[in-house]
Amino acid sequence: MTLKEKLHTTIFESETRAGKIFNIALIILILISVSAVIIESIPSVHEKYGQIFLYLELFFTGIFTIEYCLRLYSVKKPLSYAFSFFGVVDFFSIIPTFLVIVLPGAQSLLILRSIRLLRVFRIFKLGIYFDEGSSILNALIKSRYKISVFFFSIIILVTISGGLMYMVESPESGFTDIPTSIYWAIVTMTTVGYGDIAPATALGKGLASLLMISGYAIIAVPTGIVTAELTKTHVITNNACPTCGREGHAADAVFCKFCGSKL
Amino acid sequence: MTLKEKLHTTIFESETRAGKIFNIALIILILISVSAVIIESIPSVHEKYGQIFLYLELFFTGIFTIEYCLRLYSVKKPLSYAFSFFGVVDFFSIIPTFLVIVLPGAQSLLILRSIRLLRVFRIFKLGIYFDEGSSILNALIKSRYKISVFFFSIIILVTISGGLMYMVESPESGFTDIPTSIYWAIVTMTTVGYGDIAPATALGKGLASLLMISGYAIIAVPTGIVTAELTKTHVITNNACPTCGREGHAADAVFCKFCGSKL
Amino acid sequence: MTLKEKLHTTIFESETRAGKIFNIALIILILISVSAVIIESIPSVHEKYGQIFLYLELFFTGIFTIEYCLRLYSVKKPLSYAFSFFGVVDFFSIIPTFLVIVLPGAQSLLILRSIRLLRVFRIFKLGIYFDEGSSILNALIKSRYKISVFFFSIIILVTISGGLMYMVESPESGFTDIPTSIYWAIVTMTTVGYGDIAPATALGKGLASLLMISGYAIIAVPTGIVTAELTKTHVITNNACPTCGREGHAADAVFCKFCGSKL
Amino acid sequence: MTLKEKLHTTIFESETRAGKIFNIALIILILISVSAVIIESIPSVHEKYGQIFLYLELFFTGIFTIEYCLRLYSVKKPLSYAFSFFGVVDFFSIIPTFLVIVLPGAQSLLILRSIRLLRVFRIFKLGIYFDEGSSILNALIKSRYKISVFFFSIIILVTISGGLMYMVESPESGFTDIPTSIYWAIVTMTTVGYGDIAPATALGKGLASLLMISGYAIIAVPTGIVTAELTKTHVITNNACPTCGREGHAADAVFCKFCGSKL
Repeated sequence: MTLKEKLHTTIFESETRAGKIFNIALIILILISVSAVIIESIPSVHEKYGQIFLYLELFFTGIFTIEYCLRLYSVKKPLSYAFSFFGVVDFFSIIPTFLVIVLPGAQSLLILRSIRLLRVFRIFKLGIYFDEGSSILNALIKSRYKISVFFFSIIILVTISGGLMYMVESPESGFTDIPTSIYWAIVTMTTVGYGDIAPATALGKGLASLLMISGYAIIAVPTGIVTAELTKTHVITNNACPTCGREGHAADAVFCKFCGSKL
Repeated sequence: MTLKEKLHTTIFESETRAGKIFNIALIILILISVSAVIIESIPSVHEKYGQIFLYLELFFTGIFTIEYCLRLYSVKKPLSYAFSFFGVVDFFSIIPTFLVIVLPGAQSLLILRSIRLLRVFRIFKLGIYFDEGSSILNALIKSRYKISVFFFSIIILVTISGGLMYMVESPESGFTDIPTSIYWAIVTMTTVGYGDIAPATALGKGLASLLMISGYAIIAVPTGIVTAELTKTHVITNNACPTCGREGHAADAVFCKFCGSKL
Repeated sequence: MTLKEKLHTTIFESETRAGKIFNIALIILILISVSAVIIESIPSVHEKYGQIFLYLELFFTGIFTIEYCLRLYSVKKPLSYAFSFFGVVDFFSIIPTFLVIVLPGAQSLLILRSIRLLRVFRIFKLGIYFDEGSSILNALIKSRYKISVFFFSIIILVTISGGLMYMVESPESGFTDIPTSIYWAIVTMTTVGYGDIAPATALGKGLASLLMISGYAIIAVPTGIVTAELTKTHVITNNACPTCGREGHAADAVFCKFCGSKL
Repeated sequence: MTLKEKLHTTIFESETRAGKIFNIALIILILISVSAVIIESIPSVHEKYGQIFLYLELFFTGIFTIEYCLRLYSVKKPLSYAFSFFGVVDFFSIIPTFLVIVLPGAQSLLILRSIRLLRVFRIFKLGIYFDEGSSILNALIKSRYKISVFFFSIIILVTISGGLMYMVESPESGFTDIPTSIYWAIVTMTTVGYGDIAPATALGKGLASLLMISGYAIIAVPTGIVTAELTKTHVITNNACPTCGREGHAADAVFCKFCGSKL
């Protein structure tokens, strides 16, 4: 086993002992570095301890740079890794600090510092080892068409509601234009309800009530879709009948329940 | 195949190649025209680029008018189309702009411009081709009695809660009359919670707490109804096969899954 | 068939033709009279049209009084009807107007007028004819122990959260005493979120975040309970095994699945 | 039966008559004492009736101290009881009052008084007798990995959303630092929506809309997980009976429901 193979096993194969230790150490480092970015953003903290956070950041970036290089070195196709989701996340995890060093005054750039928050996505690397996560994701992927139809209907509903409220309510109540009214419709239908914009007229309140009750009941639809998908896997297979092509047969079915021919 | 038949195939039958292209082009046009209506409503945009949006609108209306006429021409029963849901939507998608041209000063009419938002409903024309959408709609239609009983109970609950709060709270807290109190009850029970009206007395807060917890738990009812309907097709009945006598067939089975004979 | 029997059939048996007409007419009257009570509560309306609403009210009360007397006359056990839920509701639907006539100045009594809102409960009389409603009610009744355990846990959770926030937050942020803090915890956990009371300290915001995410996830519990109950009825019976006494057998079960003895 | 055994039966075995009476009396006492703590926290009540509440508290603490001693005496392993969850709760239920007596001026200590709220947990002692509660808890425990994956994803989503909003919105709108922005993201995604912090820019409102709709739809995931777990016991497997060969047994079946032989 060459050094490259050993590295590959440690970095990418989390089932081995070395891989497990490497992964857990990495997760802890990611969490601490993300927490540091979050805490540093508080103005009073930044003023007082800015220097300490800069040193911390240099330390984290150093380690993540070494890790990034080792990954690029040990993987078979470095380019396809570099342009994969995790490759890009890894790159953006280290680049802001390098820019800070190279460009004078960049240290104070808020956006540069915030980009480092993307590191939190690196936790998903561990995430893929959860079987549980993949079963939820599976149910979501299987019901993606149903869910997109749902979002579709939501978008149409909030557009029409926003337009109606724009006609009914005056700009003084906050309904200054249709985009703002649609924003209000989303805030209301999802039951968030900030209260920064609220209907003032009787007709507006009536329409708002309808939208609220709709939003309250419509939540049943995505819930029903995901639940049906999560319970389905226990009994129903995906096999299509070779004769009529219809799916949805029970796991113990021998003949197609729709046309009666052998499965 | 006459021109009329060809047109009918292109406009109404989305499975053909020509039909697919026509449909997708139409959807894109609808989305752009709806976006234009939404963006134009922003006062600052309307002031600056009002002229450009007027020309855009004339262009969209021209195309939608041609489409409307072609539909009326190619369909077998033009009148029944004109008075169908989509026929009415199509008509209201073009009429505002014609009124703007004919009536002087109508261009500034807010309502006329907003009516064009109805175009968004035309996207549903595509929607019907989604099998997924129809299965959700099916579940909703099948459980329509259960859902109306649910809405019924909601209405009674908010009426009684609103009346109670009107008695308990003073008009100073915003509970000026029963309609307003019922509006507050809807805002609270659906967990929207704007905060423009909120109870001030201890008794009012207690009643509000009860309403909140009820609203929080009652959401389980429509969810349960829709989920039960969506999973129903996977439910196993206890009907025995008349040929082999074995049970455990799905509710939607037509043929026995064990021996293949008709159920 | 005596007059009494005929009346009983018309009033109480909604399946007959006369009963159906009687019921629908009654429902419409109830809805109009409830709407009148609601609209009359608006101060400006009451000032202007108070006299008209008084006459309307006298008319409604007259009809409901006749109906109440006919019910008492045609029913076999008048007393047990008078003290049943609907008997009490019927009584409170007519008594406020009589008090208004008898007592001078009582007309302006807000509470007396609001009591008439109770009439809305009379709609449930029709409600019982919905099979759908009874199946939902059945599921709720069957899961009443599970639901009460759920409410129990909610009460403990908001009590502890309210107590914690009372310790952490200052009275200036609105957390003046434990009852108010518990009220805030209910507003937050049920995701209503008025915003009249909101945490100001970092620790308070952290605790509030935990409570919000809990409330957001806990809603899954009553939903799961009701859904499980609504889907259960299709397959699982309530029959206990005569040998081991355990329930939950499938409708097609011949032998107990737990102890193997004949059901 | 010795006195110790008798005490053990009364205190710990709620199925006996004496145990039932003891338990119910205790629950009532706990509820009254918790209510007293809650009501006493209201400043005006504390000022007026502080003395009465002090005497009440001494009475409750006396009884709970006797109960605590009896439990320690009658249990077989006093130390393991003392360090169990309920042992610690019992200890913290009585200690604040003793500290108040011993330490001068401690009576006014807000935290000491609030600790007594922990008594509410003692109600769970009764809770364990509910079979219903344990079935819910069971479903939650079984789906704990799925639920933790869900919380995991929520944390990543609110971190990224908070970071984005911190970049997009100005500190004037309330987005002063990343922790505050993450707090806002939690308030928004869980659909609580206080309204103390709300986006002001168009881009911020757009991002907020996405977060709201995500939060609105994501609630389907924990609901689906818990529902799937709660309905699982009613799910039919495709295991054949080794004796009669018939399938369609429930997942929790031990004996064949058709022939009664062991599965």
